[in-house]
Amino acid sequence: MKTNTATLLIHCKDQKGLVVSVTEFILNNNGNILYLDQHVDNHEAEFFMRVEWDLSEFHIPTEKISDYFETLIASKFTMRYQLHVNSAVPNVAIFVSHLPHCIYDIISRVRSGEWNIHIPLIVSNHEKLRHVAEEFNIPYYVLPITAENKAEQEQKTIELLREHHVDLVILARYMQVISPEFIAEFPNKIINIHHSFLPAFPGAKPYHSAYARGVKLIGATSHYVTADLDAGPIIAQGVSEVSHKDSVENMIRKGLDLEKIVLSKAIWSHVQHKTLVYNNRTIVFE
Amino acid sequence: MKTNTATLLIHCKDQKGLVVSVTEFILNNNGNILYLDQHVDNHEAEFFMRVEWDLSEFHIPTEKISDYFETLIASKFTMRYQLHVNSAVPNVAIFVSHLPHCIYDIISRVRSGEWNIHIPLIVSNHEKLRHVAEEFNIPYYVLPITAENKAEQEQKTIELLREHHVDLVILARYMQVISPEFIAEFPNKIINIHHSFLPAFPGAKPYHSAYARGVKLIGATSHYVTADLDAGPIIAQGVSEVSHKDSVENMIRKGLDLEKIVLSKAIWSHVQHKTLVYNNRTIVFE
Amino acid sequence: MKTNTATLLIHCKDQKGLVVSVTEFILNNNGNILYLDQHVDNHEAEFFMRVEWDLSEFHIPTEKISDYFETLIASKFTMRYQLHVNSAVPNVAIFVSHLPHCIYDIISRVRSGEWNIHIPLIVSNHEKLRHVAEEFNIPYYVLPITAENKAEQEQKTIELLREHHVDLVILARYMQVISPEFIAEFPNKIINIHHSFLPAFPGAKPYHSAYARGVKLIGATSHYVTADLDAGPIIAQGVSEVSHKDSVENMIRKGLDLEKIVLSKAIWSHVQHKTLVYNNRTIVFE
Amino acid sequence: MKTNTATLLIHCKDQKGLVVSVTEFILNNNGNILYLDQHVDNHEAEFFMRVEWDLSEFHIPTEKISDYFETLIASKFTMRYQLHVNSAVPNVAIFVSHLPHCIYDIISRVRSGEWNIHIPLIVSNHEKLRHVAEEFNIPYYVLPITAENKAEQEQKTIELLREHHVDLVILARYMQVISPEFIAEFPNKIINIHHSFLPAFPGAKPYHSAYARGVKLIGATSHYVTADLDAGPIIAQGVSEVSHKDSVENMIRKGLDLEKIVLSKAIWSHVQHKTLVYNNRTIVFE
Repeated sequence: MKTNTATLLIHCKDQKGLVVSVTEFILNNNGNILYLDQHVDNHEAEFFMRVEWDLSEFHIPTEKISDYFETLIASKFTMRYQLHVNSAVPNVAIFVSHLPHCIYDIISRVRSGEWNIHIPLIVSNHEKLRHVAEEFNIPYYVLPITAENKAEQEQKTIELLREHHVDLVILARYMQVISPEFIAEFPNKIINIHHSFLPAFPGAKPYHSAYARGVKLIGATSHYVTADLDAGPIIAQGVSEVSHKDSVENMIRKGLDLEKIVLSKAIWSHVQHKTLVYNNRTIVFE
Repeated sequence: MKTNTATLLIHCKDQKGLVVSVTEFILNNNGNILYLDQHVDNHEAEFFMRVEWDLSEFHIPTEKISDYFETLIASKFTMRYQLHVNSAVPNVAIFVSHLPHCIYDIISRVRSGEWNIHIPLIVSNHEKLRHVAEEFNIPYYVLPITAENKAEQEQKTIELLREHHVDLVILARYMQVISPEFIAEFPNKIINIHHSFLPAFPGAKPYHSAYARGVKLIGATSHYVTADLDAGPIIAQGVSEVSHKDSVENMIRKGLDLEKIVLSKAIWSHVQHKTLVYNNRTIVFE
Repeated sequence: MKTNTATLLIHCKDQKGLVVSVTEFILNNNGNILYLDQHVDNHEAEFFMRVEWDLSEFHIPTEKISDYFETLIASKFTMRYQLHVNSAVPNVAIFVSHLPHCIYDIISRVRSGEWNIHIPLIVSNHEKLRHVAEEFNIPYYVLPITAENKAEQEQKTIELLREHHVDLVILARYMQVISPEFIAEFPNKIINIHHSFLPAFPGAKPYHSAYARGVKLIGATSHYVTADLDAGPIIAQGVSEVSHKDSVENMIRKGLDLEKIVLSKAIWSHVQHKTLVYNNRTIVFE
Repeated sequence: MKTNTATLLIHCKDQKGLVVSVTEFILNNNGNILYLDQHVDNHEAEFFMRVEWDLSEFHIPTEKISDYFETLIASKFTMRYQLHVNSAVPNVAIFVSHLPHCIYDIISRVRSGEWNIHIPLIVSNHEKLRHVAEEFNIPYYVLPITAENKAEQEQKTIELLREHHVDLVILARYMQVISPEFIAEFPNKIINIHHSFLPAFPGAKPYHSAYARGVKLIGATSHYVTADLDAGPIIAQGVSEVSHKDSVENMIRKGLDLEKIVLSKAIWSHVQHKTLVYNNRTIVFE
């Protein structure tokens, strides 16, 4: 990630002149376009665009880009848009329960310099993975959840996340259902990994269901969390071959790699501002 | 396929001495084992085996192998088994409706010598694909199905299949539900291709459902037909990546290749006597 | 493929204003853009673009589009471009030798309506696959090649191709090296399928080499034919898993599906005008 | 991995009675066979077998199994065999240079309990990855290599490995060529990850070569190290799709996941005693 660039994510009804107007706005103010992707849903006449440009000689001061874009372009076409100035390093909170393979994969990418994100805290409903937090010297908060204390604990968690200026929440095999109230605080900012190729096998114990059904492929699905369990917009999916030789335990083992790779792929798309949500589906630019 | 070989497919409760007994039966009668695969379901204590051997110097006459094996081995271990003498070329009936990609793929494999099977007839509920049958000079029977005539037409079809000594029925995108009575005539001998990664999207229009759900993978599943629609034992599955760029029409187009390859893979496993059905799941030896 | 559309494929040095200029040319003349893809090679500062638009209300008469585009846009930016009016059905010649799996796959796609191309003739150096041509009623020309007659036979072949207005030549496992003179007649218009993941195992008997090396993946590569054997620009590649269980014969068998699917993928990209060649590499728009 | 089991890996010329003799040896001494895999290379008439059984009621004392097997079975059939008693936890040394993605993946699997191996030390020719060793509290030895000191440093390394009773060496993107003398100390016990689908792009900078050649797939290959650079027996391979959009830098990034997953797959096969080397190729049982 170059540090001195801006990214615009745009969504509006398809109209003539959209690409021309946006690119002229950048070019006329001396921005050098690095990447431009656009997608037209011809069926629904919706327009989506992602454009990233170099800010080093851009005439409009960074803090005024949004204002100018709103006035000159967005209002004219009734656009919804997000402006991201990429020098900001996102704060990402990781939620875990018992299984560490996903969080190890995420932290490894940060520590090796593959990803430029900051992990201010790890949240869990169990003590079990404290050793992971300690290995990497990351604060680890345990908030056990019961039917009685759920609302209260979620409220505490929200406060923790605010305190740490969290931009994105990752459910890295966190085995608790998040309440609609919590989700509403982080719309399209909570990413989950589910251990099946959704919509097959939602809910608990998908590998057991996959074994019982005798499938020849197991899968993993990363999606934005919405109020409907395991039904949010899918960001990434992957599958792995299995055969009659694979016991449930072996499927679970094979699934570990699948889950961590699919989740990390989804996180990376989000962090690069390459995802847009529309009608419970995602646009994922490359 | 070598022509002078025999294949035994065996299923029984796991017991000591199974592999030893079967291989000694072959070796002691001067059979040369070409392939041996066995699988033990340790969880359910079930034993499965496939063994193929050269008959050229085998002491037991071909027509008596089954009798001897039953007496000497199978009865002792309470085995269920199938004996296939591979010089027999199977008679395979293809059922089609509107889409020819699967039947073209199947016939091409036969005509090019890739598969040693015979296609005595094609059955359809429409005239539309008669040209395929004519290109390859294969009898084409049209039996239109209505709610009223279904039982009668199925009975006619069963007679046709018997007349042609059909060993296997392929539903190559045949768009009619087969009745339980018909299925009972061909247990584990009817193979269907469904255009989704089952158990996701059973029933009609799976690509439309896949599009609406926003999946990032589409799939195809080939399975034995049972009385439960799209719920029979799965033989083969495949997936293909899709993105937000893919319209429903494009998914349907991408699915064509997936369907024909997955169906042909399943047929080839069956025809080589590499499949066993157990608890609505399949053992597919390699 | 919609029939009343035009496609522009553009390549030039990267400069400011390229996307704006091209899209304005279309929009200002009342063209409705259906697809727009662009790629900037930031390293080499090269620009590539594919744009497809609806001609039904386009102000510039179809036969004058190229002239106007040249004058108003291309000359200004020193563009190389191709204009394709998509109502034209391309004439595709298929060259074969002994193996029919690829040609069956190609013809099946045409006969089933999946591809809108015309196959005016099949060329071979052997009689062996005449039956395929006869099944589909396509003229079949046999031109046996020896060291002595090669130049002469190639000349005859070129004349045949001209006579049939051939736009694209497919080497569907045609086992003869094409001379540089022949290739010069059809620059970037001859597509070959090679049965390995190039650059591994160029030349003859790649499956034997793959077996000897003990690889765990076999591959297929479709590429434009250039004067360097098996070294032309790659359009599509695919792989399939193999193991120690696979004999050379089994690798050859597994390769059949790989070859036909990879070749057809490459043909389909070319026929939709989605490919551009640059520095012996391809841009393949989606 | 169950802790009280034994595994036999067997290789000899194919002969009648092999499977029977080995399984009887186990059964007659009250061993319960858990897994049995065998492979016959029909072309070369070589026989390979892996059998794993429960030792809990086995009559032969663990320390005498090898002696008995040698006398009663192996000598009769001129077998080469390895006996592994699985309660032993292997000591695995990891060699690294600059890139930590593979070592992070390996250590994560150990710390999460996915793999039952011990890592007594990390060896490097650079200080750079000391932080990884410190995060997990593993001894980190730096032995810088120059043309002058190579023999000496390798000798020191061998002593370190002996001191720590190392059973397996992993070159986790270790950027030094290992000498034949070093390799001779650890025959088929050094596993490397090479960042291409070998035999394509051996040697340095394979992603640069892949980019220049314009391939549509990049790969990774894990193999046993032999005296021929990047030419040892392949254990596992994987590929990932790339397109014209991928710069060299992007290919390198995409390759990170591929390399770590392929290397870990190979290590896991070796550690479970599922690999046999023959004619510079591997048998990898499932």
